[in-house]
Amino acid sequence: MSSKVAVIGVGNSKFGKRDDVSIRELSWEAVQESLNDAGLTLQDIDLTIIGSTAYRGVEIYPAPVVAEYNGLVGKAPIRVEAACATGSAAALNAYMAIRSGLAKIVLAIGVDKMTEVGTATSLAIGGRGGNYQYEFHLYGTTFPTYYALYARRHMALYGTTEEDMALASVKAHKYALSNEKAHLRKSISVDDVLKSRVISSPLKLLDCSPISDGAAAVIFASEEVAKKITDAPVWIKGVGYSSDTSSLASRGEWTSLRSAREAANNAYSMAGIVPADVEYATVHDCFSIAEIIAYEDLGFAERGKGVSLLREGQTEKGGKVGTNLFGGLKAKGHPLGATGLSMIYEITKQMRDEAGSVQHQFKKYIALSHNVGGTGHYAYVFVYSR
Amino acid sequence: MSSKVAVIGVGNSKFGKRDDVSIRELSWEAVQESLNDAGLTLQDIDLTIIGSTAYRGVEIYPAPVVAEYNGLVGKAPIRVEAACATGSAAALNAYMAIRSGLAKIVLAIGVDKMTEVGTATSLAIGGRGGNYQYEFHLYGTTFPTYYALYARRHMALYGTTEEDMALASVKAHKYALSNEKAHLRKSISVDDVLKSRVISSPLKLLDCSPISDGAAAVIFASEEVAKKITDAPVWIKGVGYSSDTSSLASRGEWTSLRSAREAANNAYSMAGIVPADVEYATVHDCFSIAEIIAYEDLGFAERGKGVSLLREGQTEKGGKVGTNLFGGLKAKGHPLGATGLSMIYEITKQMRDEAGSVQHQFKKYIALSHNVGGTGHYAYVFVYSR
Repeated sequence: MSSKVAVIGVGNSKFGKRDDVSIRELSWEAVQESLNDAGLTLQDIDLTIIGSTAYRGVEIYPAPVVAEYNGLVGKAPIRVEAACATGSAAALNAYMAIRSGLAKIVLAIGVDKMTEVGTATSLAIGGRGGNYQYEFHLYGTTFPTYYALYARRHMALYGTTEEDMALASVKAHKYALSNEKAHLRKSISVDDVLKSRVISSPLKLLDCSPISDGAAAVIFASEEVAKKITDAPVWIKGVGYSSDTSSLASRGEWTSLRSAREAANNAYSMAGIVPADVEYATVHDCFSIAEIIAYEDLGFAERGKGVSLLREGQTEKGGKVGTNLFGGLKAKGHPLGATGLSMIYEITKQMRDEAGSVQHQFKKYIALSHNVGGTGHYAYVFVYSR
Repeated sequence: MSSKVAVIGVGNSKFGKRDDVSIRELSWEAVQESLNDAGLTLQDIDLTIIGSTAYRGVEIYPAPVVAEYNGLVGKAPIRVEAACATGSAAALNAYMAIRSGLAKIVLAIGVDKMTEVGTATSLAIGGRGGNYQYEFHLYGTTFPTYYALYARRHMALYGTTEEDMALASVKAHKYALSNEKAHLRKSISVDDVLKSRVISSPLKLLDCSPISDGAAAVIFASEEVAKKITDAPVWIKGVGYSSDTSSLASRGEWTSLRSAREAANNAYSMAGIVPADVEYATVHDCFSIAEIIAYEDLGFAERGKGVSLLREGQTEKGGKVGTNLFGGLKAKGHPLGATGLSMIYEITKQMRDEAGSVQHQFKKYIALSHNVGGTGHYAYVFVYSR
């Protein structure tokens, strides 16, 4: 058994509308990069965990085809799903496999081809990720609708404005410009966001993350192996996870995700840190309001004050806690199975000082990933150190 | 971290066409029984793993609704899928969570409502569990077709007959008669099997497991906790898992599942036993030929000789290795997400001498579960002791 687990290799495909590749070819882009990054070959991998929501595309049980194409036959017994947090569920499986002593080197692959179905279908699938019977079927609640409800409530309780939320989108697009792998690479203004068409009021098109295809791969290793293989391991210092009710009607609040707060508290506790220690974060900005809520749920800001971090530039490069400097879900893209592992890719690059023009300046090298499934139906927070 | 993991509570719903319940209500039948069996309440559960193939029914992302209905909000961050071995993938997750030290008591829930779609759709879904692009789409290969191919090859190489295969079905139905939770409770003869309509030659209707709804739940605990809670823990002595190519065309043989052999070897090795030590087994008899192949893959019989165990009654109650004495997939039923955990339910009842009229006689109390996903796309073998 290994008491510590390290990230020793990361890969990330180009995100976007990837008509040029099948899901297995897409996964290989990430796997190949992660192996090269770790200096390993397929033979070194003990176990593979595949994270995919199997998003109603061509491959509905994608693990065997992904494993076969990548040369991982015999090593891929599990697919995991946790809606939009599927990539983090795969990371947690890899972490458990190593800490339990069952494996020393584990490859987690996250992949989804979401554009194989139309946008309307996609929204319906999203809506069914919540409570099908009571909310999707009766009220037609799709994912933008869920977050629109949170946004309205946040506006009513705390005075958050549509302009405030737009700041999150503008920041995401600004950083995606320098990320060649990002789905959406164009600069936008607050005005652009405000004038974009309404999806579910108050959320407009540019408040929403795109429907993306993409893959990410992360290689985890036990402490012993990591120290042999690499001079730059990124250690997982804390893992936190939680879940919440399927129906939003059952929740007592609509401006914060209880599951994310619990996941964060558990991760902080295990890592022995407080929110103020975090220097870099990836947060789950599936909608602009979600980034603001994330700041609050993670303890970066008080309840209702999340927007102040955006206004003051505290989550910019060089700010107190650099956040989503690769473009976030909003502009880098959000292929559900890949997102959580893509966050680890980004954090690893940052923690190794390999992030180029978006390199954040660290003092203590403490980072965090925050990945939410659905509207807090699942939540994962991991803390990393160098 | 716990070096040993025990089964401390088991539950199993009635399997069958369960129009009377939703997937969450179905899951509760198993969860409730497992809690009562362990003498625990929901508050004692640290973590829940939900195994479901989300079989194209009403709930396509079932974990949050199942968790909410069962009162497990905050504790259910992961759904796992490994096709027909999904229940065992959930068990492996629970095992890893405990051995890694992340949790002390883990509830694994396996559930699928497969009858919410028609049989034709169901077969198509099954076929897509293999290689969609090369085998399902081009050749229309559904699951019976895959196993029919194995059966034909076994017949050609080893002289296995349709009568031989029918013996497996007859045995399954015989034992399901005394299992009130079984899907199919009627006695059948070899002649009935041979005269039933052809599904995919040489497999006929009565060579095939039914399309079932059902749930199973298993509570796992660390050694320390198990010893406090129960006088009759069932210990997991060995875990083995493997996977194979998505396309059958890529495999070098069609009379044996390489993944199952690897899983078995790994489980035997970890448990420090040999096949002859196993006194009770649940094997994955999704089709009659699959039971014969299982005997061979597990080392209970030489290659090509599996049918001799059936002919000689060695896998009957009181035989050398009692097998599927609750009716097996063939007659107990095969709700994909539940099957692997239902096997653990059955083994636990047997190992505690609580199996009533089908109680097998043990000397050393060593048992094994063998759960295959697809046509060997995934395989799990676990070894148990008292």
